[in-house]
Amino acid sequence: MKRNEVVLHPSERLDDLLTHDLQIIQSDEVFSFSMDAVLLARFAGIPKRGKILDICTGNGVIPILLTTRTKASIDAVEIQPRLAEMARRSVQLNQLDEQIQIYEGDVRNFADQIGYGKYDAITVNPPYMPLNGSDIKLSIHQATARHELNGTLEDIIKACMHLVRTGGKVSMVHKPQRIGEIITLMRKYRLEPKRIRMVHPRMDKEANMVLIEALRDGKPDVRMLPPLIVYNEEGQYCEEIMNIYYGEHNLEEENK
Amino acid sequence: MKRNEVVLHPSERLDDLLTHDLQIIQSDEVFSFSMDAVLLARFAGIPKRGKILDICTGNGVIPILLTTRTKASIDAVEIQPRLAEMARRSVQLNQLDEQIQIYEGDVRNFADQIGYGKYDAITVNPPYMPLNGSDIKLSIHQATARHELNGTLEDIIKACMHLVRTGGKVSMVHKPQRIGEIITLMRKYRLEPKRIRMVHPRMDKEANMVLIEALRDGKPDVRMLPPLIVYNEEGQYCEEIMNIYYGEHNLEEENK
Repeated sequence: MKRNEVVLHPSERLDDLLTHDLQIIQSDEVFSFSMDAVLLARFAGIPKRGKILDICTGNGVIPILLTTRTKASIDAVEIQPRLAEMARRSVQLNQLDEQIQIYEGDVRNFADQIGYGKYDAITVNPPYMPLNGSDIKLSIHQATARHELNGTLEDIIKACMHLVRTGGKVSMVHKPQRIGEIITLMRKYRLEPKRIRMVHPRMDKEANMVLIEALRDGKPDVRMLPPLIVYNEEGQYCEEIMNIYYGEHNLEEENK
Repeated sequence: MKRNEVVLHPSERLDDLLTHDLQIIQSDEVFSFSMDAVLLARFAGIPKRGKILDICTGNGVIPILLTTRTKASIDAVEIQPRLAEMARRSVQLNQLDEQIQIYEGDVRNFADQIGYGKYDAITVNPPYMPLNGSDIKLSIHQATARHELNGTLEDIIKACMHLVRTGGKVSMVHKPQRIGEIITLMRKYRLEPKRIRMVHPRMDKEANMVLIEALRDGKPDVRMLPPLIVYNEEGQYCEEIMNIYYGEHNLEEENK
């Protein structure tokens, strides 16, 4: 595996992405990805060719993982300069500069900059929490990744509508608590939910993540996929999770 | 168990409800209940006292099953005279006349007749299919139970909003295909989804039923309950389904 050398800043480390020899720059103080991003990168309906956009990209984990599934050109946008710069170094590290382009910018006006209806598919792992003052222990980077400091759920969904083409797909990971709002807002902005998958930590627990794929200008018709269970009764990862994390995904493999 | 004698019409039979010695009048030509109704009767958040309404009651299976969980007074409304009359005989059969009252009527103007905001909880197992001309083999009774011949999903959800009090609950069973529409319409009519449960025929299959409970004028905050799996790997009912069908539910038992 060829890899470029990159500079690591204080607090940063290099982590393996456990698939296709990919690595990523992380930092507990700034940003490190979680299972949510990995599951979304696997769940999202994406084309083999064309143009994909990842919104709220953080350290770029989703676009980097998507390269194992597609030859499409992938743009990614991140509002925090510190994270956008971190994502760029991870892209360089993996020699993915030709496939992935990281933009530093605000998704609320990104369509004005890049063009309307430009993308075949969009992925988004947005901040989960409405704006409030509770998480005072977080750094500004962490707070921005978790709270709606730079745009509400509605702002983000509206931006997706502007950026995706008719017939294109928008895939999101979020908290089940907000699925009512998510579905209402998606439908308000002509993104029709088509595939939903609930992620439960265990078989007998409430879901703690929801994966949802919507079709721009689609007809109402939802497929509610089998539940994705993370841990089995012995407290070990279930087979599907092992496969998502450690499997060597084939570029030719179909998503559905 | 005391039971009244009732007349059975041609094509009708008496079926056991398998719990609390309850029986019900059914007919393959007119109406017979399915698992959907049984699961809704078990899932719905209902008070121990007060007033409950079941909409689109068919042969009255849901109100009759609810009597095993509550002492509340239960009204039920059915638009088809043939079914309303059948439901009344099942109520008499089980000597539940004092707890259950069957109304023959149209849910779209039922609030004008009975009063607005009158109920603490509503259950509804509506027709699943939008109006179309495909099921020509069905009798008019069956077609009315399955297709939106007498009111759309929106009409029914709007009626629920009119009939339930602020802070009261509306519980529905429906097809997952329509969950986008259901959630959007519920929120349009101030019914905030609070508890959702997906029913999957098997662990690795897409859901074929959704149970959803909404709170009139509630705040957005959904609990996505553990999946309910119907059959295990051996093709037998899972333990929870066995318990729902055959368990002797305690009146004092909490629903949640």
